[in-house]
Amino acid sequence: MAGVKLLGFWASSFAYRVIWTLKLKGINYEYIEEDLRSKSQLLLHHNPVHKKVPVLLHGDRAVAESLVILEYIEETWPENPLLPTDAYERAMARFWINFGESKNATFFQFFKSAAGEEQEKAIKETVEILKIIEEQSLGDKKFFGGEAIGLVDIAFGWLAYWFEGIEEAVGTKLLNSTTFPRLQAWIQNFKQVPVIKENLPDRQKLWAHSKRFRESLIQ
Amino acid sequence: MAGVKLLGFWASSFAYRVIWTLKLKGINYEYIEEDLRSKSQLLLHHNPVHKKVPVLLHGDRAVAESLVILEYIEETWPENPLLPTDAYERAMARFWINFGESKNATFFQFFKSAAGEEQEKAIKETVEILKIIEEQSLGDKKFFGGEAIGLVDIAFGWLAYWFEGIEEAVGTKLLNSTTFPRLQAWIQNFKQVPVIKENLPDRQKLWAHSKRFRESLIQ
Repeated sequence: MAGVKLLGFWASSFAYRVIWTLKLKGINYEYIEEDLRSKSQLLLHHNPVHKKVPVLLHGDRAVAESLVILEYIEETWPENPLLPTDAYERAMARFWINFGESKNATFFQFFKSAAGEEQEKAIKETVEILKIIEEQSLGDKKFFGGEAIGLVDIAFGWLAYWFEGIEEAVGTKLLNSTTFPRLQAWIQNFKQVPVIKENLPDRQKLWAHSKRFRESLIQ
Repeated sequence: MAGVKLLGFWASSFAYRVIWTLKLKGINYEYIEEDLRSKSQLLLHHNPVHKKVPVLLHGDRAVAESLVILEYIEETWPENPLLPTDAYERAMARFWINFGESKNATFFQFFKSAAGEEQEKAIKETVEILKIIEEQSLGDKKFFGGEAIGLVDIAFGWLAYWFEGIEEAVGTKLLNSTTFPRLQAWIQNFKQVPVIKENLPDRQKLWAHSKRFRESLIQ
């Protein structure tokens, strides 16, 4: 089997999507940490369009963009499937993954909005998105796809860990268990999966990173 | 076989992605035109999250979002494949489809920017995106995937027809054959495919629609 390498960054939830997927599949890989202030030739060569992590190297092939990588892994190593086999259920999974991805700009707005009207608007829109995820996507299921972890959980995984650091940096808690009891239950279920629990960045370091990053955006 | 219906709108390039894909696959379907000013209960019921066309109804299943629908069709009717069989080539196709989709906001900015600095910025960013598509995705190939039409062509299909109406409405031509010879050649190749040529909205009507829509955004 051709060797697998992953170019990542310790605080990137996008890179963690790939880490979790590789580990859930039981694929051995070499992890290469990128210095995002001085990107490697390897990264620039293999992802000239976005110049971003994660990039998966598989033999002489390179795949960029976390969601594209997830589908590539699922197709290349079909064992321990993370997408349903039924075409309609796969479509539903992709629908929700795309929904989350299309809202990244709004989440980022919440992260970087400093105060006042702009922040109120970002908070309102973020809460609306979370409500749609809670009520229409998750519902009363243990994981987004039912009883087992899958690609939708992995795509939304940043909400289970990174988002709390963002709330802390902003100083506003949105994902509380009163308003979002089902998402909160999912967060617990998600973090209890051994591969997830054992593969998360250091909490204190991540929180401090979020805070510094936000300050750099606001100044 | 369960019946197939498509909820569309005559001017929607997103709906045309599905029309082209169904026709290329040779799938019979019933087309239902939506009145977007007064959306049908069928649309609102089957796409409560986005409330947008296109929506594909397949028996008692409903799939929304054009790119999700395209993958659903490809998986459900694998004849006349529109994605490569090789996992890496499939990843490349999805990479470019996602790239295009992630730039919709910039294209929209070009469409609605009225004048001055804002418009200059939108033009510059749009040209950069087109250059990436021309040089890094299309290259010297006849279609994005090589010799035959595929999902990347279908996803970028709006550039071959709708974009000219947008340029006309804005009053600025960007996709000219001097700067973008390869994209221009692709546009000709794309529009020569019988299923594409025979399934395009009326040009004059579409141009007028783009103009009216732009005026409503600017006012």
